[in-house]
Amino acid sequence: MTNFIRASVVQTCTAAYSLTDTLDRLERLTVLAKERDGSQLAVFPEAFIGGYPKMSTFGAVVGERSAQGRDEFLRYYKAAIELPSPALERIKKVSRETGVFLVVGIIERDGGTLYCTAIFVDPNQGFVGKHRKLMPTASERLIWGQGGPDTLPVIEAQFASSKAEETGVSAKLSATICWENYMPLLRTFYYSKGTQIYCAPTVDARPAWQHTMTHIALEGRCFVLSACQFAQEKDYPAEHPVADVSARNPETVMIAGGSVIISPLGKVLAGPLLEGEGVLTAELDLDDIARGKFDLDVVGHYARNDIFHLETTGA
Amino acid sequence: MTNFIRASVVQTCTAAYSLTDTLDRLERLTVLAKERDGSQLAVFPEAFIGGYPKMSTFGAVVGERSAQGRDEFLRYYKAAIELPSPALERIKKVSRETGVFLVVGIIERDGGTLYCTAIFVDPNQGFVGKHRKLMPTASERLIWGQGGPDTLPVIEAQFASSKAEETGVSAKLSATICWENYMPLLRTFYYSKGTQIYCAPTVDARPAWQHTMTHIALEGRCFVLSACQFAQEKDYPAEHPVADVSARNPETVMIAGGSVIISPLGKVLAGPLLEGEGVLTAELDLDDIARGKFDLDVVGHYARNDIFHLETTGA
Amino acid sequence: MTNFIRASVVQTCTAAYSLTDTLDRLERLTVLAKERDGSQLAVFPEAFIGGYPKMSTFGAVVGERSAQGRDEFLRYYKAAIELPSPALERIKKVSRETGVFLVVGIIERDGGTLYCTAIFVDPNQGFVGKHRKLMPTASERLIWGQGGPDTLPVIEAQFASSKAEETGVSAKLSATICWENYMPLLRTFYYSKGTQIYCAPTVDARPAWQHTMTHIALEGRCFVLSACQFAQEKDYPAEHPVADVSARNPETVMIAGGSVIISPLGKVLAGPLLEGEGVLTAELDLDDIARGKFDLDVVGHYARNDIFHLETTGA
Amino acid sequence: MTNFIRASVVQTCTAAYSLTDTLDRLERLTVLAKERDGSQLAVFPEAFIGGYPKMSTFGAVVGERSAQGRDEFLRYYKAAIELPSPALERIKKVSRETGVFLVVGIIERDGGTLYCTAIFVDPNQGFVGKHRKLMPTASERLIWGQGGPDTLPVIEAQFASSKAEETGVSAKLSATICWENYMPLLRTFYYSKGTQIYCAPTVDARPAWQHTMTHIALEGRCFVLSACQFAQEKDYPAEHPVADVSARNPETVMIAGGSVIISPLGKVLAGPLLEGEGVLTAELDLDDIARGKFDLDVVGHYARNDIFHLETTGA
Amino acid sequence: MTNFIRASVVQTCTAAYSLTDTLDRLERLTVLAKERDGSQLAVFPEAFIGGYPKMSTFGAVVGERSAQGRDEFLRYYKAAIELPSPALERIKKVSRETGVFLVVGIIERDGGTLYCTAIFVDPNQGFVGKHRKLMPTASERLIWGQGGPDTLPVIEAQFASSKAEETGVSAKLSATICWENYMPLLRTFYYSKGTQIYCAPTVDARPAWQHTMTHIALEGRCFVLSACQFAQEKDYPAEHPVADVSARNPETVMIAGGSVIISPLGKVLAGPLLEGEGVLTAELDLDDIARGKFDLDVVGHYARNDIFHLETTGA
Amino acid sequence: MTNFIRASVVQTCTAAYSLTDTLDRLERLTVLAKERDGSQLAVFPEAFIGGYPKMSTFGAVVGERSAQGRDEFLRYYKAAIELPSPALERIKKVSRETGVFLVVGIIERDGGTLYCTAIFVDPNQGFVGKHRKLMPTASERLIWGQGGPDTLPVIEAQFASSKAEETGVSAKLSATICWENYMPLLRTFYYSKGTQIYCAPTVDARPAWQHTMTHIALEGRCFVLSACQFAQEKDYPAEHPVADVSARNPETVMIAGGSVIISPLGKVLAGPLLEGEGVLTAELDLDDIARGKFDLDVVGHYARNDIFHLETTGA
Repeated sequence: MTNFIRASVVQTCTAAYSLTDTLDRLERLTVLAKERDGSQLAVFPEAFIGGYPKMSTFGAVVGERSAQGRDEFLRYYKAAIELPSPALERIKKVSRETGVFLVVGIIERDGGTLYCTAIFVDPNQGFVGKHRKLMPTASERLIWGQGGPDTLPVIEAQFASSKAEETGVSAKLSATICWENYMPLLRTFYYSKGTQIYCAPTVDARPAWQHTMTHIALEGRCFVLSACQFAQEKDYPAEHPVADVSARNPETVMIAGGSVIISPLGKVLAGPLLEGEGVLTAELDLDDIARGKFDLDVVGHYARNDIFHLETTGA
Repeated sequence: MTNFIRASVVQTCTAAYSLTDTLDRLERLTVLAKERDGSQLAVFPEAFIGGYPKMSTFGAVVGERSAQGRDEFLRYYKAAIELPSPALERIKKVSRETGVFLVVGIIERDGGTLYCTAIFVDPNQGFVGKHRKLMPTASERLIWGQGGPDTLPVIEAQFASSKAEETGVSAKLSATICWENYMPLLRTFYYSKGTQIYCAPTVDARPAWQHTMTHIALEGRCFVLSACQFAQEKDYPAEHPVADVSARNPETVMIAGGSVIISPLGKVLAGPLLEGEGVLTAELDLDDIARGKFDLDVVGHYARNDIFHLETTGA
Repeated sequence: MTNFIRASVVQTCTAAYSLTDTLDRLERLTVLAKERDGSQLAVFPEAFIGGYPKMSTFGAVVGERSAQGRDEFLRYYKAAIELPSPALERIKKVSRETGVFLVVGIIERDGGTLYCTAIFVDPNQGFVGKHRKLMPTASERLIWGQGGPDTLPVIEAQFASSKAEETGVSAKLSATICWENYMPLLRTFYYSKGTQIYCAPTVDARPAWQHTMTHIALEGRCFVLSACQFAQEKDYPAEHPVADVSARNPETVMIAGGSVIISPLGKVLAGPLLEGEGVLTAELDLDDIARGKFDLDVVGHYARNDIFHLETTGA
Repeated sequence: MTNFIRASVVQTCTAAYSLTDTLDRLERLTVLAKERDGSQLAVFPEAFIGGYPKMSTFGAVVGERSAQGRDEFLRYYKAAIELPSPALERIKKVSRETGVFLVVGIIERDGGTLYCTAIFVDPNQGFVGKHRKLMPTASERLIWGQGGPDTLPVIEAQFASSKAEETGVSAKLSATICWENYMPLLRTFYYSKGTQIYCAPTVDARPAWQHTMTHIALEGRCFVLSACQFAQEKDYPAEHPVADVSARNPETVMIAGGSVIISPLGKVLAGPLLEGEGVLTAELDLDDIARGKFDLDVVGHYARNDIFHLETTGA
Repeated sequence: MTNFIRASVVQTCTAAYSLTDTLDRLERLTVLAKERDGSQLAVFPEAFIGGYPKMSTFGAVVGERSAQGRDEFLRYYKAAIELPSPALERIKKVSRETGVFLVVGIIERDGGTLYCTAIFVDPNQGFVGKHRKLMPTASERLIWGQGGPDTLPVIEAQFASSKAEETGVSAKLSATICWENYMPLLRTFYYSKGTQIYCAPTVDARPAWQHTMTHIALEGRCFVLSACQFAQEKDYPAEHPVADVSARNPETVMIAGGSVIISPLGKVLAGPLLEGEGVLTAELDLDDIARGKFDLDVVGHYARNDIFHLETTGA
Repeated sequence: MTNFIRASVVQTCTAAYSLTDTLDRLERLTVLAKERDGSQLAVFPEAFIGGYPKMSTFGAVVGERSAQGRDEFLRYYKAAIELPSPALERIKKVSRETGVFLVVGIIERDGGTLYCTAIFVDPNQGFVGKHRKLMPTASERLIWGQGGPDTLPVIEAQFASSKAEETGVSAKLSATICWENYMPLLRTFYYSKGTQIYCAPTVDARPAWQHTMTHIALEGRCFVLSACQFAQEKDYPAEHPVADVSARNPETVMIAGGSVIISPLGKVLAGPLLEGEGVLTAELDLDDIARGKFDLDVVGHYARNDIFHLETTGA
């Protein structure tokens, strides 16, 4: 009995804060993953819907916020989407029509607070869950709230086996966004819930990111699918801050990508993609997970529950 | 049976990030409160020890931190104090020698993280508790961690009655730092623990702060003692960022004060002090709390526990 | 996309306990708000319909009620209105004909008990909800029952944008009556439900009230519309008790007003009105709410749900 | 096997708000019940410790509280006792030394709020429970908070049989204070918990009270022990308000008594006592309860649980 | 605006199980109430039509029923009336012709079961409702079924004001039969439905009944109209069992009456009538209900809905 | 104030199970680190003293062990050292004489069980602690026991600053052996204890190891010093099993090295060393830890203690 699925990470970016254009991109790249690669699952980057305001300060210094900063926040606030919303309906429609399960980084608006969220959309079931980033990093703390224990789902999804169409394959998915991936207790929580396809939407394009992705695959004995934004100055609104204002250039890279797919034994199956927008696809043999856990199962035979016990509250 | 104590709020600021000079200030102003005003309790502003890096950005923009920002953080990190530490010993000594109970805003270093903390120092008992700010505001989130439920003490302290020396007076003190004061559930928690002298160290010098302080006194039927920093450019290191770099002026006010003492029925007993450094002292008639709770006790006869129940975890 | 509405607070009082005259006043002042100010929303004071029996004791002392007190209650009971009732029909008609959304303080009769209630009347939808004051203050406990969790609505209403007529604006309204405004858990409940236009009908004319209104605007990042009664001795029946019976004077002020409109960042947009009857109107830029929540959202990014959890029962 | 106990109701009053004198009275009358009547259980009136401020208004009219009223409240607040407290220790000592189980009406101070409470004190176990009055009546709402569902105990106590010393008798006791006795759902709750000795401390001295006491005995098939205060003007402080200030007379009756003991079939076993201070004692044959429930058990065979279901929250 | 009606309780009994004679009595006594007393409402006792078989056993012992008992039941069954029926028509005619609203205790036959029922007959509307006793007492359980939640009406009836003929008065009526009056949840249900004229047809002639009637008036703040049978041996068929068969005496009282009318503040307005057949009439000032609820409304301001919630099923 | 130390990782292997020869190697390489590189700290690989029996099976199959396997274990058992022991004395002497703090992988014999241990030896304090590997991997479970919570020290050591000799530098060290490094809860424990110099003795020479080492540096914001064995067939006894028995070659690499030193921001300071035996040294700027924790402190500001709580037992 085979146990394979085909999965993609999509490297792209928000279309200059235009929701419609960004949703068009989502549709175009999902169709590409499906038609070119036969993909069944596609992971989009952090903040893909809503945008990642790289280089912004929102007018904040310690002890002061400016009126312009508040207006900038207002624009960003309006660019975010609610759940549910027409944008979500559009995403569900793309999933339904292509048959591709989608994991998409969005900026979620809930009351007066924004969250950096990943949503799970199933072709048949529609919207099946969301994860809100638990801990924003540095200046992100100015604009995003903290997710809670109620949005840490591990979603069991059904796929057709990519090798033997007649057989159904079930896989457990989770999402961990950007530097959350450095939280050892969060990862342990997901491992303990049995995550098999560990999705890591991000905007971290440092080379060091690759080490962490490989480490997690090895530590958790899971497939790691990291989708990073690739963005240039032209992908942002005209007035957006850049690293060097005196040398604005539409081609200057703002976020350099690095999307990658890694197996439970640390083998890079696809990527890292560093050159621009693109879709990476790999075939995942889910049996590799058991193969890997033979000698390391950090929430099983390789744990020391007598010494270390992870208490989780509310999750 | 009289029930009076004399209490002060001290309006001052950190001495250009010099710990020794700042501790000297603490001693000088505590002695003043004691000798001039007969004070038994003195509240110092937020971040008095360690400093409030107003206007700093620590080199952070969304998605990036600079090496200079990291170095600025390192300097700030080193300016903070640990608990216990020689600095704490010095503060305990000042309290012991003057007989003044001290509530002092400090920057506390614990491992790799800094906290914005208020410490309680008793003339006889020494260090009796601390409160770490629960939620930093805006850019403060770059430099301070979040306090936890284990540092929300309401401290019962013993004083001699300021009107009848032979009689002991017991009073319950709490500390809430800067915009924490806008957290209704935190305030409710303190009310439910019986806070009588609600200390509010701050650096918020907006006129609107006065409204909030009066409101809290009325809502909680407690004495509110808000100590704000008063700081000018000369109180910061030479290279410190300022609002207008092109017009550096040692006399320019960075934090404008507004320290105030308010009674449980909303009467301003002293202040607001807006002109500079200074010590405000008032006599607190603790019986005003019962007089005030006659018609409003938001955690007693004026609560609706059947509808609203505040659950607290870990506190 | 503009997001403005024009809203009024109406400072007036009950017409000597005459229901007809009071409803005439409601109509006259609503028309004024509409025609003079272009208002789309008008908030009337606490107990406007039915009356606020200031200075009455209803013959009650601890342990005794007098027959005269029972008769006084009977008169007051009969002056109250039921829901539905012809009086409500009249209010709905005023709303429908002027196009002004009304929030009106009434005394509601339900069985043998009276409630201090605020009703919400929509020009198109008619009566859309009511809030019963949860906790009467002091002597009010003799005459009013306590509201329950079933009457804590946050009403989403539709308005035309006051700046761009073609665009619809949606806003969430709540009502909190007089000293209920001091209940931190009630306010938190409303914040959590997303109130944007926080209506505060009152008869509290103390100067301190202004502090609390400003604080709430800042704490909740919402517009606060407080409508207070302005009443003189002549506005009460001849025999009504007054502060100084030996110096009855028709012009003596019984309730001194103080109606006010405040923005989410604590700016007073109109008022406080202290001189007598009147209508205050301001243009509300609803985007100021998001601008304000940028750095404070006490039910979102500025909450500590891990420590403090507000349980509500039945609401 | 006999099943008898001897029980008393004590008719007395607070000693001019003197705690020490009032506790002396408690001791004197308990000793009397024990030595003269062989009593094993004594019920004292509502507000016996702390006092019932009959005829006071605490300076409250609708919409206003006076400074004098607040001071009056302060005095009353200080006259109340906390649990635990030295006063409670004294009561426990009286119980322990006499061997009499005590049910005593007190004014309980808890934070800023007072409660009208009945405490249960066992000779061997000490303080075993308390009941806070759920709903103050009329002007009482100015000074007392509302009890909650956590203070509705039905206490199982052990007695020696008064007829056959060698046999232990177990009996369930509850307390319902003054007009709480008119709350049908509260009574039903106590019946459902099996109350056998229904204690009703009160200050209601109207003749109509006797009807209600008899009705409850019949309805609940329980022994009813109602202890009322008997108080004259001389039992209050000199300045205390009275019905007719122009005719102050130390002998004028303020609260007229009416203490009574009634059997489960409505037979008056002792009292009503109308003439002054005194102790009434009766022998209770607990088997009368079963005899009475033969044809009426409103929480058993005579209930209609299919139609009426009493939901209780928190109790 | 006056708010008075005149109401009667009729003390009488069934005419030796003769339906015709009993209906004649009904007519005669209704006319008397109308003509002598100007009554607008008359309440007749429990089981007035059909009879109350006092002292019967219907031949039942535990485990056995006799043939004679069956025959006795047959006779009783035939004496009962159906709804509708000619007997009902006769009653409606009496009401219509006298203008008196009637509340009449009957034995209702429905299929093979008898019910102890009270019917409501309006002069203008005719038969407007019925209440079947929910819970028969003791041996009544041999002959009567249990009513259900569908027969618990509170009937709003229209009267002319007895003091100002031009004004219509509306009043809410309920019926509770005999020991149902001891069911606290049933009473609470009626209170919650707003009963104002609480009719209590009964055959309970114990003195203790008076306590319960007064208690209910006080508890429910409603008028209580209790109509009891007055029956002698001569009012039963010759062969009917009696207390002392050896001393049969036509004058011996079987049911001793005690009909009474009580105001919402517990004042006895008429009766108790203990001497024989008769009609008691009183003027009811319906405003006394609001006067009374001023300080006690057990389903309004004096309830604790947060703790005690009465669920009713089917009613 | 400078804060630098110089530290080395030593890549070498056990000398054909000869204790004396291996201790000689330890001395030779420590002297080299000191004299050539000015090192103050040297980390030796896992199982350096005692040996890592790569390719051995110890004659075990499921359900059977062979006599030869038992003998092989006996030899291995004898090659291990006890604590204390002459071998430890020798190591202490090397440390004392060179002034180099040593962290050394050993096989520790304790009773009948062997442990894979790392010892900490201070030039001045001598033996200051040990860590026993918590969880052997795969076949290691045949020969090594599991360490317990009592051997998880974080050792605070004193160094002279490598840049300013007059100043003392304090640093916290920990040891984690081989695949223990994949245990997220163990790492979190060490982070929470403040480890600054995270020593990772290992025999894992896979390229993937580098990812994990870099990840840990980034995750823990600590210096990572990984010392791996480099061993060839000639470094084992003649009869030792090898990968290809038919092609025994003294030069064939058995363990391929990969020792490395990485900074808290993920920068590789030295290594990885892949070519053979050697000593790598780097200067560690301990202030880089605070610089790094500025934006990530997984046990401080970047933790979510409200959700995830690491309970440790016995440590």
